[in-house]
Amino acid sequence: MTQGARALLRTLTDAGVTVCFTNPGTSEMHAVAALDAEPAMRAVLTLFEGVATGAADGYARMLGRPAATLLHLGCGLGNGLANLHNARKARVPLLNIVGDHATSHQGYDTPLQSDIVTVARNVSSWVRSASTSATLCDDVLDALDAAQGPPGRVATLIVPADVSWSDGAQPRRRTAAPPPPVVDDAVIDAVAHALRHAGRGALLLGGRALREPALQLAARIAQHCGARLFAEVFPARMQRGAGLPAVERLAYLPELARLQLAAIDTLVRIDAGAPVSFFAYPGKPSELVAPQCAVHALVAPEQDLDAALRRLAERLGATAPAPLQPARRPPRPRGRLSADKVCKAIGHLLPEDAILVDEAQTSGLMLPYYTAGAPRHDVLTLTGGAIGQGLPLAVGAAVACPQRPVLALVGDGAAMYTPQALWTMARERLNVIAVVCDNRAYAILDLELQRVGVHAAGARARAQFALTAPELDFVRIAEGLGVPAVRATTADAFVDALQHALDTPGPHLIDAVVPPTLAGLKLRLLPRVLDSLASLPAPLAQAIRRRVAP
Amino acid sequence: MTQGARALLRTLTDAGVTVCFTNPGTSEMHAVAALDAEPAMRAVLTLFEGVATGAADGYARMLGRPAATLLHLGCGLGNGLANLHNARKARVPLLNIVGDHATSHQGYDTPLQSDIVTVARNVSSWVRSASTSATLCDDVLDALDAAQGPPGRVATLIVPADVSWSDGAQPRRRTAAPPPPVVDDAVIDAVAHALRHAGRGALLLGGRALREPALQLAARIAQHCGARLFAEVFPARMQRGAGLPAVERLAYLPELARLQLAAIDTLVRIDAGAPVSFFAYPGKPSELVAPQCAVHALVAPEQDLDAALRRLAERLGATAPAPLQPARRPPRPRGRLSADKVCKAIGHLLPEDAILVDEAQTSGLMLPYYTAGAPRHDVLTLTGGAIGQGLPLAVGAAVACPQRPVLALVGDGAAMYTPQALWTMARERLNVIAVVCDNRAYAILDLELQRVGVHAAGARARAQFALTAPELDFVRIAEGLGVPAVRATTADAFVDALQHALDTPGPHLIDAVVPPTLAGLKLRLLPRVLDSLASLPAPLAQAIRRRVAP
Repeated sequence: MTQGARALLRTLTDAGVTVCFTNPGTSEMHAVAALDAEPAMRAVLTLFEGVATGAADGYARMLGRPAATLLHLGCGLGNGLANLHNARKARVPLLNIVGDHATSHQGYDTPLQSDIVTVARNVSSWVRSASTSATLCDDVLDALDAAQGPPGRVATLIVPADVSWSDGAQPRRRTAAPPPPVVDDAVIDAVAHALRHAGRGALLLGGRALREPALQLAARIAQHCGARLFAEVFPARMQRGAGLPAVERLAYLPELARLQLAAIDTLVRIDAGAPVSFFAYPGKPSELVAPQCAVHALVAPEQDLDAALRRLAERLGATAPAPLQPARRPPRPRGRLSADKVCKAIGHLLPEDAILVDEAQTSGLMLPYYTAGAPRHDVLTLTGGAIGQGLPLAVGAAVACPQRPVLALVGDGAAMYTPQALWTMARERLNVIAVVCDNRAYAILDLELQRVGVHAAGARARAQFALTAPELDFVRIAEGLGVPAVRATTADAFVDALQHALDTPGPHLIDAVVPPTLAGLKLRLLPRVLDSLASLPAPLAQAIRRRVAP
Repeated sequence: MTQGARALLRTLTDAGVTVCFTNPGTSEMHAVAALDAEPAMRAVLTLFEGVATGAADGYARMLGRPAATLLHLGCGLGNGLANLHNARKARVPLLNIVGDHATSHQGYDTPLQSDIVTVARNVSSWVRSASTSATLCDDVLDALDAAQGPPGRVATLIVPADVSWSDGAQPRRRTAAPPPPVVDDAVIDAVAHALRHAGRGALLLGGRALREPALQLAARIAQHCGARLFAEVFPARMQRGAGLPAVERLAYLPELARLQLAAIDTLVRIDAGAPVSFFAYPGKPSELVAPQCAVHALVAPEQDLDAALRRLAERLGATAPAPLQPARRPPRPRGRLSADKVCKAIGHLLPEDAILVDEAQTSGLMLPYYTAGAPRHDVLTLTGGAIGQGLPLAVGAAVACPQRPVLALVGDGAAMYTPQALWTMARERLNVIAVVCDNRAYAILDLELQRVGVHAAGARARAQFALTAPELDFVRIAEGLGVPAVRATTADAFVDALQHALDTPGPHLIDAVVPPTLAGLKLRLLPRVLDSLASLPAPLAQAIRRRVAP
């Protein structure tokens, strides 16, 4: 009675898809029942679908291969949509298995009937509804090919209940994927020429280019050409720290990013999109490069990136090794806790090979600066802007890399979209430290309100950003979900809590109470941003300082 | 800089839309800024969009007019999708205002860019993206007309940021809607004829027919014709209790619903869909009526229901008042707490005019039985099967009816999809009592697993239903979200906690720990279902008992 589902699971595990993040319902019961026959498949239960999809994203970012999700019809997929959007923007491989009513039942307007294909299409590059048990496993292979790419994609396979429960399905084995297409010589030549003749050139690294070996090659090219090395604002996964090339991320605030790029006359995008502001603001352009800047792209998403960089380096004769980030840690912070000190403490203690999930939009501002010289680590960021990603991403990263410490820095607002992730951390005993930057506000929105041209917001508007009355108690929330938690209001307490969490296996939450940043956030914020641009050449940094914070 | 947004809000409040459930982001900042200029609009902040959409559903169910939501682009709408699905199935009027990037910014593939129209279409009968400030308020009126119906619909208006921030918008006033079309005489005649000549007739009430005056008219007709009176399985809002006609709800389990309908040869649907099982099961038909049963429909969703029932009653000469449910309460339960005793205690204490939200799929089984003779009350149920609706629905009902006590009975699994609703209850000081039936399991799935034909599920399958290791601590979760909470493990403690909550304004949560119902659920469940069919004629009840639980 579960033959279809069993063949499906076997086809997945044979293809190396051995983790499934689940929140099943009745239409997925055959897949659930088949779990006992397929012990190679690890089913990680989540209490909310957004946790499942965000975890699958985090898993894929770390391993480069897809996890599956198991979701309940269109509504379950809907609940997972925001983090699938983030996964789509991260270009990770991810396979959704979405149950559906039995084919014969779909003509009735039953309560759970909905147009699953339409829901899926928004985030999926590949969508199919399996039509028969006999072809189910071919569908699975097609879905995996689509998901794996390159580029990685979200693929959604809808499986009606009768396809799961009927006989006739046979497991299928995947054949090796063809190698990715290579970049044309003409493109390599054109980019090499542009970099050779650039006045002030820069490479903008995104996607795969922020990881070795591409990262080292790109840094060598930049060094050779005297070009600057930028990273996109929100990388899916960025390798950094002591012993790796240092790459300066573009700022989220377009005024700052525009200043970072102001002098650049030749920009080569390497697996990165064109630099564009996150939101539009009245009277301001969306594009961030200067009008006279020529923008080139080295590779298309489906092309072989590493080979293209090797060829470009050869063409340029860029053989000298790139300069590497020296080891450097901030001192232990003291006194009353602040967002700045949270970031400093993380830089002070971050262990070797950590995975750092960053979803603290305002409080995490100084994190790149303070961790720049920490031991090498990976940073995962909010690729699609749909908040509620940090905790689920940490779940997936920890499942993917059980030996590596995962530290998720999340804003209080962001944490409340998917707090259910904490329960899965506890259930799976994941080595995740969730640090909630608890400023009792949607602080980013207070900033944005000023930036969209509203300078005299009233009390009713401001109440929309205040996470007060009542204040959230993240210690109780975490404990209620099975994760040990402490609150820190001083830097000392925070450092001690972080050290304890690093020393003690299993999940932890630290409620980092930082001063409310509602009033005058903009004025206070910008100088810190400028500090974080410390790696800029001094004249440029001074120019920015004069212009932004006179 | 907020003229578009101000005109939008003014058009809404002029039309009686005075509540907006919000979770805004940057693209909605102008609407937020406009709140101070439009004090007639109450903005109720939620921490997650599914709370906003579920609350708008609950509000509309109680008042029959739309609330608005304010959501952040396609991802915010995506997070609200599951409860919009429930709202769509409930046929309530509801207006989503979804911000979008400024028009000039939409061509760039920025992180938050997505196809909002496609996401909206799945749940919305009406979708439009506002194109200019000058036409914005016409769009609002069109959206409201579409939402109001009848039938009530979900309408989604997408508002690019520049339409909100530009000049040129003027508030518009809504003109009175035309009266709904009436049912043809021929249909009234046909239904009257069918009921007159029925051997065993029944009326199946749904939607608007479960509320006065339609409910009284339908009961009078049924009484006159000797027809049974059924309610659809999951009504949007059902008035019941002492002094109202008693209506027997069809059972969720198709075997039982089929038995309820087995003898019926003439079924008249009154604002209800055709009776179909919730899920399909191997080898079982989806339709619930007997093959020989003739099914008629009295009204289309857009037609005037009350007038149709009045005319049908006249045509039949059904002038005698319907029999009414006598007052009757179960005694105070004693001993160790169980789901049965939770329902009994609610029946024991339910105050006059309460609003009862039922999202406890297995634990709430006895609730209809024990509350049948309680003081008159409204019941709101899970219309679309997308769980995570109960707590948000309670938020909306309490905002709509601040003078009425709201009691939400939710399963532990269901509560964890949208626990953020508790924070909004605390922030708005809503009179909501959330009773979590804490059986530490997705108990419904254990039942469904057996029902889809899998009788020997293994440990790995069963682990997918077990909300254990760690157990959820709903008292801490609620307290963390600002809602006072207690745990009850005995019936005495539960009754005392419920009485205290009823006597004390503001929100409360009771963590009702009930025995795990994983093992042997089916056997234990069915006799109770049968008890809940006590209103059946004795011979039929006996037949069911023999057939289902031999």
